Amino acid sequence: MAADPLKNIRIVLCAPVHPGNIGAAARAMKTMGLAQLYLVAPERYPDAQAQWRASRASDVLARAIVCACLDEALAGVGFAVACSARSRELAVREVTAREAAVEAASVARTQPVACVFGNETYGLTTVEVNRCQILATIPANPRYSSLNLAAAVQVMAYEMRLAAMSGGASPAQPRQLATFEELEGFYEHLERAMVEAGFFNPQHPKKLMPRLRRLFARARLEQEEVNILRGIVKAFERRKPERMKNEGG
Amino acid sequence: MAADPLKNIRIVLCAPVHPGNIGAAARAMKTMGLAQLYLVAPERYPDAQAQWRASRASDVLARAIVCACLDEALAGVGFAVACSARSRELAVREVTAREAAVEAASVARTQPVACVFGNETYGLTTVEVNRCQILATIPANPRYSSLNLAAAVQVMAYEMRLAAMSGGASPAQPRQLATFEELEGFYEHLERAMVEAGFFNPQHPKKLMPRLRRLFARARLEQEEVNILRGIVKAFERRKPERMKNEGG
Repeated sequence: MAADPLKNIRIVLCAPVHPGNIGAAARAMKTMGLAQLYLVAPERYPDAQAQWRASRASDVLARAIVCACLDEALAGVGFAVACSARSRELAVREVTAREAAVEAASVARTQPVACVFGNETYGLTTVEVNRCQILATIPANPRYSSLNLAAAVQVMAYEMRLAAMSGGASPAQPRQLATFEELEGFYEHLERAMVEAGFFNPQHPKKLMPRLRRLFARARLEQEEVNILRGIVKAFERRKPERMKNEGG
Repeated sequence: MAADPLKNIRIVLCAPVHPGNIGAAARAMKTMGLAQLYLVAPERYPDAQAQWRASRASDVLARAIVCACLDEALAGVGFAVACSARSRELAVREVTAREAAVEAASVARTQPVACVFGNETYGLTTVEVNRCQILATIPANPRYSSLNLAAAVQVMAYEMRLAAMSGGASPAQPRQLATFEELEGFYEHLERAMVEAGFFNPQHPKKLMPRLRRLFARARLEQEEVNILRGIVKAFERRKPERMKNEGG
């Protein structure tokens, strides 16, 4: 149980291009009491520009963790928020930055939480968004919604500080949410079983897996629930051999 | 009566030092639908750095009004908000950024409103603060509350947009949720299949079905999602006969 949920919230920047933005993001984080910065394949880092823009948040910058891919940055995370200006079809549940912050701060009392930001030019890819449980959008001018990366981090960090400080409605019993790895393991298992059962054709995937991801993301699966679901899938997989044995006996 | 209160809100930067911050402030403003920028005795302006950091908010920058003193920038203003990280004695009434935004947006429906920001190093002077009606502070890390100037403008502009939109638009599209009967049909189907697969024993149900219900209730299943889930269960049910046929042929 973290005394301070802000200590359990990490900021993940996917493929940031400008080192100045990395530094400014570190500063934005520190002003709001966040300290864990993950950089996924940054184009230029470390860099003097990042240092300069970080100002007196150089400690956050110095402890930043550089990852090769997003999955690495999400290891151990119980709740991941994709932060994007664009909404998109078939993505995870979409909420405002403020709503996302309340949920994130609540989970962060017991488990690691990630806020994931996309590249300056392209934002988050659909694959990246679908690794997360919710999509948070910052309400913006529809004619120019392009917040600077560090400015978006500032707004999200600000909302999370307010949510964390307000105490928030902490649930009666904190739920043990499945980690990123456990969820991905379940999705792989389910997909494999559906292929074998002839329900899912990887050659013509349509949108089956993204839809199922969206559904389960909304449910915010607990660890034990993932175990139950995998048990069900496993029972279906095993079905044939067991019946054969019974019928043979 | 302004249709859009945001059109009645000006951002005033007192003695900004770095042109990059002026450009970034212009961008922050435009993303939130603000367009009136006042610069009181800027150290370097115009400047290429300001242009670059403004990105596609160069129109806001181009229309910025340069003033010699704060009084000039506040001409015609009905309500002025001093924005500062520091609270101080003998100042005007002190509120949070969020509370200030609600008041500002309310006044801005009928009269010009100003949000006044201090110099990067020293912030606002007491004289400047006392020109305003309220002092708005952005809740921050007490050990490092030094938001970048443009980042502070971003947070204030964001709060004013939300206040003007009164709570912010909910991005959610109305979803076609499954009916009670559809849900019950799915639960029955799933239970039947699990019994047949040997995963679920109705004699010793434990809490499997209630747990699954709780899980799917949280997801608030859509009609189409129930159809997908039933399709998956059906495919698993069909599995044995199909395999038998193949193996027999």
